[in-house]
Amino acid sequence: MMRAVVLLSGGLDSTVALCWALHQGWEVSALAVSYGQRHGRELSSARAVARSLAVPLHRVCLRLPWLGVSSLVDKVKPLPRVPLSRIGRGGIPSTYVPGRNTVFLSLAASLADSIAARAIVIGANSLDFSGYPDCRPEFARAFERAARLGTRVGAEGGRIRVLAPLQRLDKAGIVRLGLRLKAPLALTWSCYAGGARPCGRCDSCRLRERGFEAAGVPDPALTAG
Amino acid sequence: MMRAVVLLSGGLDSTVALCWALHQGWEVSALAVSYGQRHGRELSSARAVARSLAVPLHRVCLRLPWLGVSSLVDKVKPLPRVPLSRIGRGGIPSTYVPGRNTVFLSLAASLADSIAARAIVIGANSLDFSGYPDCRPEFARAFERAARLGTRVGAEGGRIRVLAPLQRLDKAGIVRLGLRLKAPLALTWSCYAGGARPCGRCDSCRLRERGFEAAGVPDPALTAG
Repeated sequence: MMRAVVLLSGGLDSTVALCWALHQGWEVSALAVSYGQRHGRELSSARAVARSLAVPLHRVCLRLPWLGVSSLVDKVKPLPRVPLSRIGRGGIPSTYVPGRNTVFLSLAASLADSIAARAIVIGANSLDFSGYPDCRPEFARAFERAARLGTRVGAEGGRIRVLAPLQRLDKAGIVRLGLRLKAPLALTWSCYAGGARPCGRCDSCRLRERGFEAAGVPDPALTAG
Repeated sequence: MMRAVVLLSGGLDSTVALCWALHQGWEVSALAVSYGQRHGRELSSARAVARSLAVPLHRVCLRLPWLGVSSLVDKVKPLPRVPLSRIGRGGIPSTYVPGRNTVFLSLAASLADSIAARAIVIGANSLDFSGYPDCRPEFARAFERAARLGTRVGAEGGRIRVLAPLQRLDKAGIVRLGLRLKAPLALTWSCYAGGARPCGRCDSCRLRERGFEAAGVPDPALTAG
């Protein structure tokens, strides 16, 4: 059975990506990275999602002092609020965390190399990528090549793959795929802010809300509370 | 003045690479990564080297629980001892840390993206690479491409470069370059084991010793103590 490492933030996208990997019949290890986000709510969701799917969760804490430039890390910086139609069109937003997916994928590559996994799965998707350069398909392909050359698995002839199964889906498509795969969507957290309930106002909340609306189902994370 | 991030372990190679970057006239930030090495001696050297060259040092601590597979992390595992002539020919040694340079370069890319640096410098060299896949030139090139695509600097048209200025040098060549650049070689630490003085027996000690011998100078780190 092929092993795969899935990057799990505890959000909607990575949870659906995790269920997709399980659906492939792979032996999945999840990897959650704490990098000093504004709040720990996402990571609690990652733990709950992994537990509900009986998937082992590896957790890495890292503190990168220079990440204070991002409003997703520095609580003093205001979160951006732009019209939904303009998300992804106004350049790179303040929530961009420099090199985040490069770091995440490298940690996943290190874990994959340790357990001889052949696939790294990430929930990146381009339609709502909000201008993040490290969510682009060409980045994932370039990283895949680096991971093949820079690992034992790759050097010994294995083909590590970097897979972004949600790449072509919009939020409604991700919700529909999640429903089809019986993903524990009620346990996921997308809000950029912390708190007991999603703020409903940040970019991430509004994209999620629109996704559930378009899929024609209520958001179970809102009704569950 | 161009900014550069130099990965600094506190060893001979990365210290010479740092001096090379300073010699280019760049504004250099050093980055030291603590990943649970057998000992903290290297990091003390990194601090001493950065201080002596008046270079700001960023330090990142990360604990990757799965790295126990490497004898460079797990103190219970014996360090390898193979004939010098066979180093790099017996496949990947037990000191290989899965995906280490992938992780190091990704952290450097994140820092570079935060401070708009255009170069990442690593002391990797192929002649004594001891079989590590992530010291190969083709890996550095592949990573460079990923870093360009996955960062703000790259997405906005900047060309982040990954430079391995020691790539073609053997240990004697690195020693000679270090002497020419007046690198603080006495402050560097290469030994895989910890302790007050280098063990003189591990692969890294013997490669270093041979390098100084071939360069025709005594190792100042041995005479200084």
